This record gives sequence, structure tokens and C-alpha cells, in this order.
Amino acid sequence: MTKPVRENYREDVAGRANVEETPELAAYYDELERFDTAALWTVANKIEPWEPKSASVPVLWRYADLRDHVLRSIELVAPEKAGRRVIYLNNPGRRDVAAACGWLYSGLQVMKPGEVASAHAHSASALRFIMEGSGAYTIVDGHKMTLGENDFVLTPNGTWHEHGVEASGSPCIWQDGLDIPLVNSLEANFYAVHPDLKQAVTYAVDDASLTWGAPGLQPAGSDWKKAYSPLLKYEWEPTYEALSKYAKATDGSPFDGVLMNYVNPQTGGPVMQTIGAAMQMLRPGEKTRAHRHTGCSIYQVAKGEGYSIIDGRRFDWKRHDIFCVPAWAFHEHGNASDTDDACLFNFNDLPVMQALGLYREEAFGENAGHQPVM
Amino acid sequence: MTKPVRENYREDVAGRANVEETPELAAYYDELERFDTAALWTVANKIEPWEPKSASVPVLWRYADLRDHVLRSIELVAPEKAGRRVIYLNNPGRRDVAAACGWLYSGLQVMKPGEVASAHAHSASALRFIMEGSGAYTIVDGHKMTLGENDFVLTPNGTWHEHGVEASGSPCIWQDGLDIPLVNSLEANFYAVHPDLKQAVTYAVDDASLTWGAPGLQPAGSDWKKAYSPLLKYEWEPTYEALSKYAKATDGSPFDGVLMNYVNPQTGGPVMQTIGAAMQMLRPGEKTRAHRHTGCSIYQVAKGEGYSIIDGRRFDWKRHDIFCVPAWAFHEHGNASDTDDACLFNFNDLPVMQALGLYREEAFGENAGHQPVM
Amino acid sequence: MTKPVRENYREDVAGRANVEETPELAAYYDELERFDTAALWTVANKIEPWEPKSASVPVLWRYADLRDHVLRSIELVAPEKAGRRVIYLNNPGRRDVAAACGWLYSGLQVMKPGEVASAHAHSASALRFIMEGSGAYTIVDGHKMTLGENDFVLTPNGTWHEHGVEASGSPCIWQDGLDIPLVNSLEANFYAVHPDLKQAVTYAVDDASLTWGAPGLQPAGSDWKKAYSPLLKYEWEPTYEALSKYAKATDGSPFDGVLMNYVNPQTGGPVMQTIGAAMQMLRPGEKTRAHRHTGCSIYQVAKGEGYSIIDGRRFDWKRHDIFCVPAWAFHEHGNASDTDDACLFNFNDLPVMQALGLYREEAFGENAGHQPVM
Amino acid sequence: MTKPVRENYREDVAGRANVEETPELAAYYDELERFDTAALWTVANKIEPWEPKSASVPVLWRYADLRDHVLRSIELVAPEKAGRRVIYLNNPGRRDVAAACGWLYSGLQVMKPGEVASAHAHSASALRFIMEGSGAYTIVDGHKMTLGENDFVLTPNGTWHEHGVEASGSPCIWQDGLDIPLVNSLEANFYAVHPDLKQAVTYAVDDASLTWGAPGLQPAGSDWKKAYSPLLKYEWEPTYEALSKYAKATDGSPFDGVLMNYVNPQTGGPVMQTIGAAMQMLRPGEKTRAHRHTGCSIYQVAKGEGYSIIDGRRFDWKRHDIFCVPAWAFHEHGNASDTDDACLFNFNDLPVMQALGLYREEAFGENAGHQPVM
Repeated sequence: MTKPVRENYREDVAGRANVEETPELAAYYDELERFDTAALWTVANKIEPWEPKSASVPVLWRYADLRDHVLRSIELVAPEKAGRRVIYLNNPGRRDVAAACGWLYSGLQVMKPGEVASAHAHSASALRFIMEGSGAYTIVDGHKMTLGENDFVLTPNGTWHEHGVEASGSPCIWQDGLDIPLVNSLEANFYAVHPDLKQAVTYAVDDASLTWGAPGLQPAGSDWKKAYSPLLKYEWEPTYEALSKYAKATDGSPFDGVLMNYVNPQTGGPVMQTIGAAMQMLRPGEKTRAHRHTGCSIYQVAKGEGYSIIDGRRFDWKRHDIFCVPAWAFHEHGNASDTDDACLFNFNDLPVMQALGLYREEAFGENAGHQPVM
Repeated sequence: MTKPVRENYREDVAGRANVEETPELAAYYDELERFDTAALWTVANKIEPWEPKSASVPVLWRYADLRDHVLRSIELVAPEKAGRRVIYLNNPGRRDVAAACGWLYSGLQVMKPGEVASAHAHSASALRFIMEGSGAYTIVDGHKMTLGENDFVLTPNGTWHEHGVEASGSPCIWQDGLDIPLVNSLEANFYAVHPDLKQAVTYAVDDASLTWGAPGLQPAGSDWKKAYSPLLKYEWEPTYEALSKYAKATDGSPFDGVLMNYVNPQTGGPVMQTIGAAMQMLRPGEKTRAHRHTGCSIYQVAKGEGYSIIDGRRFDWKRHDIFCVPAWAFHEHGNASDTDDACLFNFNDLPVMQALGLYREEAFGENAGHQPVM
Repeated sequence: MTKPVRENYREDVAGRANVEETPELAAYYDELERFDTAALWTVANKIEPWEPKSASVPVLWRYADLRDHVLRSIELVAPEKAGRRVIYLNNPGRRDVAAACGWLYSGLQVMKPGEVASAHAHSASALRFIMEGSGAYTIVDGHKMTLGENDFVLTPNGTWHEHGVEASGSPCIWQDGLDIPLVNSLEANFYAVHPDLKQAVTYAVDDASLTWGAPGLQPAGSDWKKAYSPLLKYEWEPTYEALSKYAKATDGSPFDGVLMNYVNPQTGGPVMQTIGAAMQMLRPGEKTRAHRHTGCSIYQVAKGEGYSIIDGRRFDWKRHDIFCVPAWAFHEHGNASDTDDACLFNFNDLPVMQALGLYREEAFGENAGHQPVM
Repeated sequence: MTKPVRENYREDVAGRANVEETPELAAYYDELERFDTAALWTVANKIEPWEPKSASVPVLWRYADLRDHVLRSIELVAPEKAGRRVIYLNNPGRRDVAAACGWLYSGLQVMKPGEVASAHAHSASALRFIMEGSGAYTIVDGHKMTLGENDFVLTPNGTWHEHGVEASGSPCIWQDGLDIPLVNSLEANFYAVHPDLKQAVTYAVDDASLTWGAPGLQPAGSDWKKAYSPLLKYEWEPTYEALSKYAKATDGSPFDGVLMNYVNPQTGGPVMQTIGAAMQMLRPGEKTRAHRHTGCSIYQVAKGEGYSIIDGRRFDWKRHDIFCVPAWAFHEHGNASDTDDACLFNFNDLPVMQALGLYREEAFGENAGHQPVM
């Protein structure tokens, strides 16, 4: 029986590997394997590609498709058994790592009034974006945050945290965003259950907002030394107001319209070391031009309706829909309304790209910046 | 005629200079002078004091005393001749350098509706705090800021800037704060008159606030690289709201009540490299404990009435009054009202102390933290 | 035909997922798949492990095993065809990504006198450590570095670089270290062949060492703004001298003996953003205690002989041998000689752990810090 | 008797103050004085000069003039009485603050073998540069540094420090450099005598050099958090070698020849927060061009002979001579030898200029960059 010829990814280009396999080389390769080694030229062109090709594919998750399934989990599993009732977004190209896109995880979680999830901590960084319901709250290291629709809250790396819905509230659904796949891939994920399964609230309710939520002002004498934002919660109302104001002072980005990053007010940097977040406004009738960059993003439609064209495929979205843009995929956005603005929340791994020196960006140069749609 | 004996600051303490002058030494000292030198032990105890003793004295400038004089300057001098109609605060211990306290300058400026000061730039950093009137504005490098009472605006080191009052406004009085004495002492002050005596407004009015005035959000893609805050203007309304909120989440500082620093939103650092600014709220009935620190501050009463005890002297203040706390002077504050809060704005040279490693602080340890009053 | 039951990683621990599969749930899971989603509780315990378990295994690559195979590649492939003649280290647990350990790649490269590799650039960061031969050099963005045994040189992210051996030299073998697997996993790898296949030397030979190689001194007026070290080359002689000196002033680390990090002299930080490097000296007879940490390391024996115990397995090493310590694997080192010191070079991904907030460390607490050996 | 007319610094330039004094204004000014205020326009042109004019004058202190006087202090005063036997450099323009130039103090100190100065600490930062003698040492917070000619050592802000000469040594003379005048002017100087008048040596002798004196290497696990350089001592031999090497890789600065800054190896920044230091080599026959900048410098001739032209005055110097360049004074240097290099050490307040945003620089544009000499 003949051994199959190895795939060796030859390219007939100066400076690239282009070695024809011979019986002598095959024997040599076998020999190398015995010592846990191999010949670079057999894989060089594979592991040094000309440019990235994401394993993830663009996906649009329609809320209309998912909402009933999310709610049904209330009946199907008890929180004591499930830990959390979450339907996670499983990118067809990333099922091996349970990622929604790239190394980012996302899921839709539901909780009934009066329920509380058990407190835990992990090395993964997390955020949640409230989609519907009232009475939701999150506790992070003793800081309790009350949450309304389109509010976004951090539960950073290493913090004790727990989610709940007040008994006086209504069933709440939110989107979770985490870097679990990244932290697993870096072999650095630790998990701990709080010894009491819940934690005490040791600060005034919403103290993070009361203390850090002012523009251009900081509490004197603060000794915050953590690597994530002390603000912890970013509310929808001031965010939308901020975009509306900024729209009066900027032409906007040709690729993103009116785009603001959520930041750590103490440093001006990203909210957490591994996950960035942003909110953008597409003005009535606005259609942006396409660009691509390293790093990937998961979008949530916070307001309005429109479409995005991602690597030549068009996705029409409306409020609560979620979609992803894989790394180095061209993308452009359009607001479907000529009278109302549309707002997209996204979280992303751009802080990782920046911290590691791997950010790169490119405009789509042809056709006035618009991709042909497949 | 006998030459007077040199003062040589002797101290009879181990490790300190304690040299008795003799005729031989006197002759030696004379000889040293010929070569532009001198003996350290004759001045060592003077130039290495055990602790700082400020050349400035505490002063309270009552607005009731000054307002008429400020207004009178309108009649007395034309702006074309005076440059600016300013009555500056002249600390009795710092008249040689025209300082209000330490190395900080301050003055009260007045401008009539329709007037515009000529545009200029200098190495000194400046701020203004609006005390009364409507229609005031400042232009900084093409950014125009409209200003109301208790608003505070930056005109940083090296920027082209000019002040004016709209023709539709009323006479405006504001407090100027600058580090002119410091920059002069460091022999680094440059001055330039704008070639056109005025500059164009090249951004949307109040664009700095529209762009940078949101809590926890920043314009994506900003490439601001200046060493001062891009926010430029800090308005009274959100400042007072921020203090009111923070008061719900903090016990406050024992020395300062509810104190927040104005910051550069891009870095979390001071608004300019040489001048810091803060606003504090003394809650109804609040009486703080005394402490002292290096660096000096100039206060403006933004709201309410009360008193401060500075190095054992009591100063009673009300709205628009200005007072100063010299370096290393003990100080404590009290709100005179049991029902209303009082707010103190201050600007200071603490960023200089921090940048040069010279900040030091000490609580007044006796008498439950309260100084005996002289 | 019955569909196989899903693996759902149940754990009977409060706060962990523990849902028994039922036919109703199985149907629900099938339904979820249709929408590119899944139920978190079926994978939660898998993707949120209690602690990391590396996919890599400890491996020792003996130079005695590899040297002949490396040299044989000279006869087997021409550099024009192979690009570079490299035998890479293929961790049995990481063959899918061609990694020596974790996300780090390493290989042994050989080059004959007079040969030059074609100039190229990539987003991956690289280093080489010279093992044997004379006349080797590397050119990085016009800076030519001459290289001797145990010298270590950087070819950072995005730089044009090429390797060669002078015609007057001898065959050279060196170890390459790169973060190719990491950059591929982050979908951020770009590759370019230099348009001329080679670059000009535009600075004095070894100018980086002449300019940046002094302790406590830096060229005035330098405007180096890159995120990697301008020193580029770290020579063996001053490194060994540095360790010898430091050994006189330190007790050493209980885990690592006398350990120094190679740093960027301009910042004191790691040599590149994604790869750190260090050299350590084990003093005669020194046997360190075990610890473990996130991040992984690939070691090269620069001097002497000894052993390392990694996750309970003992590996005896001597000069030129290479071994790896996977993430969160306990490891301790011993010098086999009672008279001579031993030196270990390593490169690692610790800068990634630090930049992303994922570094964690733990001592082996039992048995006086020594692991039982399997 | 008529009151003298106030000096009011009028300038007949648009945008500058130009108010003629009238009896009415004089009365107004008198009135303002009663309230510790004054009219800005009477001093505006004085306190806002067009450019800085230093109060310091260029001075050359010839060692030939000073050495005998320095040595004579040994006979004249006992160290127990004098504290330290120092002849300080007293700039004719800065006698009020005992400064050699600007806000920098400098003096020549002498100590006999077997003597030890009492240990003390102060907020001023200090350095010493050894001019002659053997056996000198300095202890800083338990770190003992042995010192030879042209070595330079730090005794930073807040450290316990003491100087001595071993009994086996010879009389030592060194130059002290401090920021005492600056720290006094900032009203931030504190002084303390060590309770035991001396301190214990708690580290290996010269441990700072053994630990931090390697190029491109740092002790792993160091937790140095101070704002000054942990290297503490900068030796002459590696400094001269560094300049010689750098000279092979650079064309040099047109204004300074081959100039390197002493740096904090942990940050790449200045050695202390308020004082920078540098060494420069003028190559045989090198004559630099003139420039000026904010910040002032005090030079010590470490090697060779030559001249400097400072604000149009020529100063010829040789080994051990000291001279100063005031802020914003044009200066250029020349090596008098065509065969030997000359080396100038300097310390300066440039870190203050940088930290406060006040650095500015300008080349002398005429006459090929050379000043006419008065």
C-alpha cells in the first residue's frame, strides 16, 4: 500500500516554498517525524499566508428566529441545573471552540423575575447588553448595577459577579459577550464558584455610575488600579445623547458613520484589556463605504433597521438582531430609513490587536467604496 | 569701618551647619566671592530648611470689595490700550512676581458686550471661570466655546486664543487663572500676537463639548496628541450634577468633603500639565478636618457661603469671593448653612508637584483635626 | 438508527451545569442547530474549565538527534526551492498548528557560507539564537547585525529581514523562534516578499549595538517610536557577564536561579510585543523549586548540563538541547555540575499574558517545592 | 511731594499694553492696592515678555582658581561644624537663591580619607561627579557605591544618603549638583537628619551596578517602583566606551557632537524627575553650530580642552573646569585638539521643561550657525 503523498502547499513564486516531493524526501520526512520534527518547507506557505482568511463566516442571527427558543429554555431547564439559561451563537466555522466569531463568544440569556444566578469568577472577560425586560441587575465585586434596555455592563476578568432580576421586574433577555474562546486558546482560563454562591452588595447601588459617570470629572483621591474601567455600566440614554451631540460636530467616519468607543474614563483606553465596545449611529439615509481590518466584531442592532454587506453578502437587520464581521472581511453598513437614525452596538477584540501590534486596516478601493453583492 | 558680620544661619543640631565666623573665615569668604563662589555652610541651613515656609500669605478677596473697581476699569481704560481690563490679585508676599499665591497668577477681567480681545498665544497655561454676565465666549485654536456662569474654560500653553462677549450679551466678569509666574521663573515664557489680531472659527461652535463631553465615550479615530484636555470647556450644570451624584456614593474626604478633579478625558490626568482644577461640595453643615500639602490653591466660591481656616486664621466667604491657600499651610473648610450645600472651585499647581515628585501631605493631628483659631 | 447522545460535560457541583439529556431536550438542541445556535449548558463545563490544561506536552529535542538531519537538508533541498532550510519542532499536541509549544513556533535552520535567504516581511514576530558556525548575519530594515554563537537577534513584526552567512564563514545552525501560530490563530498574519528579494544595508554594520548597547545611556535626540527594541541584537558575552555580576548581588529566584529578562532599552519592557526572552544561570549545584504559570516557554541550553522536571517528568539536557514548558505546567530546574554554572535561554509568550491581563503564577507547595518524578 | 510715576512697561504694539498714567489712574491704582490687587496693564508687558531673558549669566569656573580654596576648607572648618565642606558656585545673577545657573545649585566638595558625612534626606534631588581622589563612596538607602574619577552617582529626592572616603583613600574632590533652588522656589523642600547620623549598608557593595548595569537586560521579578533610576551610579569607563562606539554609528548632532543621555534603564527616561544628565564627545577638531533652548545646563569638563561660545562670549576650558549655559542662551562648542576627543558632562533641568510642556529649541540661523564673538 502506498503512503499518500503529503500536501506541501507549493507555490511557484520567488521567495516561497516550492519543493517537489521525492521518495528520498518522503523517507526524510518520515525520519523527522520520529523526533517530533518536520520540514518547514512542507508547510511554510500554509502557515505564512499572504493575508488572513478567517475561519469564521458572516452570520446574521435574527431575533425573530431566536426569541421563542430563548424563552422556551425557561421551561426546559432549571437554573440550578443549567447554571445559566443561555442559547449561544455558534459560528459554522468555529463550532470547535463555541465561538460566535473569531475568538469571541456570544449568547442570549434569559432570566425570570426573582431569579439569581450563582456568583462566580473566571479569567475570561465578559459583558452583557440588555435586550428586553425590566428589573435586571448585575453585581460585580460588591457593586450592584441596575440595568435597563440597551444598557451595557462589564463583568471583567477575575471579578466575582452574578446576575439577577428583581422579583418586581419582568423576564429579561440579554446578550452576553465573552472572550472565553480566546482565553481558552491561550490556556489561561480559571473558574471559581463563590464560596457562598452569592455576594454581598457593599457599595451604594449604582455607585460606579454615581462616581465615574461624569464627563471630564473624576473622584479625587481615587486609587483605582485595576486594568478595566471603574465605570462598569454604560447606560443607553447618555450614550444616545452622546452620539446625537457628536453628530453635530463631525462628518463621521466614511466607514462607520458616527462612531464612539466606550472607554475606561481613567485611561481613555478600552473598557477591558481583551474586549472593546462601541456604539455607532447611521444617520438617516447614510450608507457607508467598505473597509476591512484585523480583529472581529459582533454587532447588536440597538435601534432602527438597515443592512450590512460583509464580504459581498448582504444582511438585512432590524432591532435586536445580531450579526458578526470576521477578521479581514470587507464590511459596509446602510441605514434603511431616510428619516430615522439607526444605532449599532458592537463588541470586538480590537484591544488585543492593538496590544499585540497586529492592527491593520484597508479601504475597499473600487466602485466608490461599495462591494459588489453576490 | 567694620564690615558687617555675615548672617550664616547657624543651628546647634547634629548634622546642621554651625560655624562661628572668625576674621580668618571672613577673609576666606571675601576671597571666594572674587571667583563667584561662596562657602555652603554659611547658607546651608537657610537653603535646606526643615520644612517649607511659604512666601505667600492667606488672603481673602471679597467680591463686594472688588466688583465696583473691576467695573470702573471699563471707563478708565480702553481695551485697545490696556490689552485686557484686568484687576489682578497681588499677594502681599508675592508682589515681586505678581502672583496671587505661590507661582499662580489670578485676576478679575471684565468685558462689555460686543468687545473682543486680540488673539494671542503664550507659553503660560490659562483658564477662566465665568463669574457673571451672559454672552461670553472663548476661541482656542479655532474652537469656539460659549460660556455661562460657573463655566470654566482652558486656554492652554501655546494655543491661539481670544475672549469676547457677544453684542447681545451683558457685561461679563470672570476670573483668570494662569501660571505666568511659574513659567517666568522657569525662564520659558514666550508671547505672540496673532498676525490678524483675531482668528477664524473653524469647527462647529462648542464642538469640544459635543465631541468629548460624554461620560465613558470617546470619538473613534480621534488622533488628539496634545498634552492638555481636548474637552476645553467644563460646564457648571453637569459639574454640579456630578457632585450631587457622587455625594450619594461616597463618605467624602475628611479634608475636602465631596471633591472631584476636572480631568483630561483622554488620559484621566490633569486638564493641563501645570495647572489642575477641582470642584468640591461641602454638604449642609459639613465641617472638614485640617490638612496641609505641598502645592498651592486658589479658590472661588461657586455656590453658598461658609468659612475656611488657613494656618489658624478664619476667613468667611460667600459667592464670588476668592481666597488662596499657600503651600504647606493647614486648611479646613466649613459650610455655614445647615440646609444648602456650598461649592468651591479651585485651581492649583498640584500637577507640577506630582510631575516633579514633590507632593507631600499631612493631616492636622490634634484637636480632632481642627486648628485653634488666632 | 438512534442518534448518539451528545456529550454535555455534566458536573455535580453547585454553580456548574448538570442537565440530563432528555428526548425533549435533544429535539430542542436539534432545533437550535438550525439557527447556528446551541445550549450553553451542554458545553459550559468544557469551555469554562476549573484551570487550564495545556494541549501541548513537554518535549525535549536533543541536538544529538537533530543535528545530522538538519545538516542533511543542505543536500536535500536548494534554498531557492525551500525558501529556508528549516526543521521545525512539532509538539505532538500541536501538530495542527505546527507549534513547538502553545502558540509558539520554533525550528532549526541551517545555511552554508555564501548563502543569503530572500528578504521578506510578515506580521509574525521572530528571533533567532545562533547555535553554531561563524559568519552569520541578519539584516533588519537596513540594519546589518553580525552574529556569533549564543547571540540572539530580533526580526520584529513588519520588518524587512533576511539572513545570510558570509562566504568566509562556516555552515551555521540557529534556532528560530516565532509567534506564527499565535498570529495565524488571531487571523492577522500577512506576508510579503521584498520586491528586490534583498535589501540594502543603509546603516553602519552593527549600528544598533553601537547606538543602544550601553548600560544606562541612550543616544540623545533619538526618535525611535517602534513597539520593539531598537537594540535588535543581544550578544552572548555581555549577557553572560551580566548574569555573573547579578549573581553577586542577588540570592536569585527560588524557581529560576539567576534570571534576567532581555528588554527594550527604551522602555524597560519586553523585546517585542508578543515574545519575551530571558537568560538564566543555574549556579553550580543549584536545584530550583517548582512553580507554574500561564504562558509557555521554549528553552535552549546555552551552557552546561542539567535537568528539568516538567509536570512530573524528568528531562536531562546538555548544550544545544531544546525543551518546552507548556502553560500551567509545574517546572523546576537543576544544574548537574557542582563546579560549573549552566545557562538556559528561553523565549516565551509572557508579554501576551501580561498585555491581556492573563498572567497567573503558583508555587508547588508540597515536598519542599519538588515534584515527585514519574 | 509728588509720588513717583509707576513704571508700567508700555509698548506701542497692537495687542500690548500701552496705557499712559494719569492722576485719575494713579488714584485708582492706590485704591486697588488697599485690596491686595493691581491693574494688569501696568505689568502685563513685563510679566508676558516676548521671549525669556535669563537672570543667570554665563560663567566659567576655572578649576585652577578654585582647587586651592576648596582644599583650604579642610583646615578652616571641621565637618562636624560645617556639615559638609563645600564651596558653591554663585552665579552673579542668582545670588539671592544660591544658584549656579537657573534653579540649579552646584558646589565643589572635599573630604579627607576616613571622613564620613552625616546621613540625611531632603526633597531636593542630588548628584555628584567625582573630580579627583580615590576611595570615595556614597550610600543611598542601604546601597553602597564605590566611586572613581568621572563617575557620577545619584542621591535622589527623599533617599537617606551619605558620602565618605575610605581611610585607605586620598582626599577627594567632587562636584555636587542639586535642584535645591528649584525645590525651595516650589516651597516643597523638607530636610531630615538620619536618627543615627549614619545608615547600615544592607546590600552587596555596588549591587545597583551589578543588577542594573547591563545593556538590554534586567533582573527578572524586579519590583522597582521609584521614580528615579535604580542604577544610581554611572561609571566613566563604560560611558566613554559607549560614546566611542556610538561615534562609529552616528554623524552626531550639529549642536552637540556625539551626545548621550544618562537614563533610567527601567523606563528610558531621565535619571531623576527634576534633573537630567548627559555626556558628550567632541571629536578631534569638531566645532558645533549654535542653538538655544529653554532649560539650563551646568557643564563639567571630563576630558580634553576646548571652548564654548555662550551668548556671544567665548570661554576656553580644560579638564575639571565648570561652566553654565543659561536658559535660551545660544551656545556652541569647539574641541581645541585636532588629535584627541574632548568630553563634557552636564546636568540640567530639561526633565522639568519636558514634564511641564515648556521645552522649546531654536537653531542660530546666520553665519553658518556660528555666533559673532564679542
